Amino acid sequence: MPGRFITLEGGEGAGKSTVMERVAQWLEQKGRRVVQTREPGGTELAEKLRDILLDRNNLVLSGTAELLLMFAARAQHLDERIRPALARGDWVLCDRFTDATWAYQGGGRGLPREHIEALETLVHGDLQPDLTLLLDLPVELGLQRASNRSQADRFEGESFEFFQRVREAYLERAAAAPGRFCVIDASRKLEDVWAQIHVVLQERLVS
Amino acid sequence: MPGRFITLEGGEGAGKSTVMERVAQWLEQKGRRVVQTREPGGTELAEKLRDILLDRNNLVLSGTAELLLMFAARAQHLDERIRPALARGDWVLCDRFTDATWAYQGGGRGLPREHIEALETLVHGDLQPDLTLLLDLPVELGLQRASNRSQADRFEGESFEFFQRVREAYLERAAAAPGRFCVIDASRKLEDVWAQIHVVLQERLVS
Repeated sequence: MPGRFITLEGGEGAGKSTVMERVAQWLEQKGRRVVQTREPGGTELAEKLRDILLDRNNLVLSGTAELLLMFAARAQHLDERIRPALARGDWVLCDRFTDATWAYQGGGRGLPREHIEALETLVHGDLQPDLTLLLDLPVELGLQRASNRSQADRFEGESFEFFQRVREAYLERAAAAPGRFCVIDASRKLEDVWAQIHVVLQERLVS
Repeated sequence: MPGRFITLEGGEGAGKSTVMERVAQWLEQKGRRVVQTREPGGTELAEKLRDILLDRNNLVLSGTAELLLMFAARAQHLDERIRPALARGDWVLCDRFTDATWAYQGGGRGLPREHIEALETLVHGDLQPDLTLLLDLPVELGLQRASNRSQADRFEGESFEFFQRVREAYLERAAAAPGRFCVIDASRKLEDVWAQIHVVLQERLVS
């Protein structure tokens, strides 16, 4: 059986990490080999780029450079880790992928749609996730949850309006590709969030 | 008077650094304010990317990731340094620019022409160098000269055939844009190289 590519998306405080663990455990119980990874990052080299992208001291980083760095890290991640895993039949669970670029660099920063489109085609025109779980919740609630965590990175220091645009861009992406996306109400408590996801996994992936 | 953008190109051992110094001195004597810079790099952040690109230990770096990293560093360099300098009327002298990407990633690595073209348009579709000095010399001679220098970086460890393709790609670029390029015979001794360049600068830039 070929591998599947599942991505988790969502703004700050959506609970992606916790959900990822649960999804991985559940898939492994069903006998799948699972690779858990994240973006930006996922390989030694791409993690170096992540450090640059998230470093709060790199405030001079221009929008276009940020966008290209994201896709450079992604190209490396795909070539070194994601494609080989899928090729050997593993299931890949990835915390953020190109939808996050559409949301953060497109929606949040307002970078041109045609730039993101050109880079997406260049880097993975042939590959899209089989399923994308979008953990959606109101920005206020997400930021409140995230504020209880460690120090904010370069993105987490952005304005409320920025995250509002990120959320809207995510929801637009989901509406444009309903066959791939599944929007999960992440404002509810973990067990309810998991119950929603469990149904989706059963129906779409392991039937 | 508006600033001018001059790039120096060429393979290993072509003598770009020495020539750059001479060009800068000559322009300054003519009363121009000169910014000397290089690629990949030229800003603190882009130099971090240079370190990743040239590090011999990063052998896993995929061709596409390398290409995107080059353009990420370039976008940052343009936004933070080159465009502001040109806007205030300075002359920018840059050791390597997008022609080097065509030569090394296009010619050397054989990456698709349409990828380089798309990235060039995205990052600086509006801006090209006013003059590009291509220091051309046979690969054998260039490698022989370069071998006397410090330890080889990630590119300098490539094969003879790689550098042959780099040289050919450079010459093709020059032939396709004769109004911008000037091919200099860099196999000759420094004074002769400088004499050729001196004529070009007089005719094209400071008349």
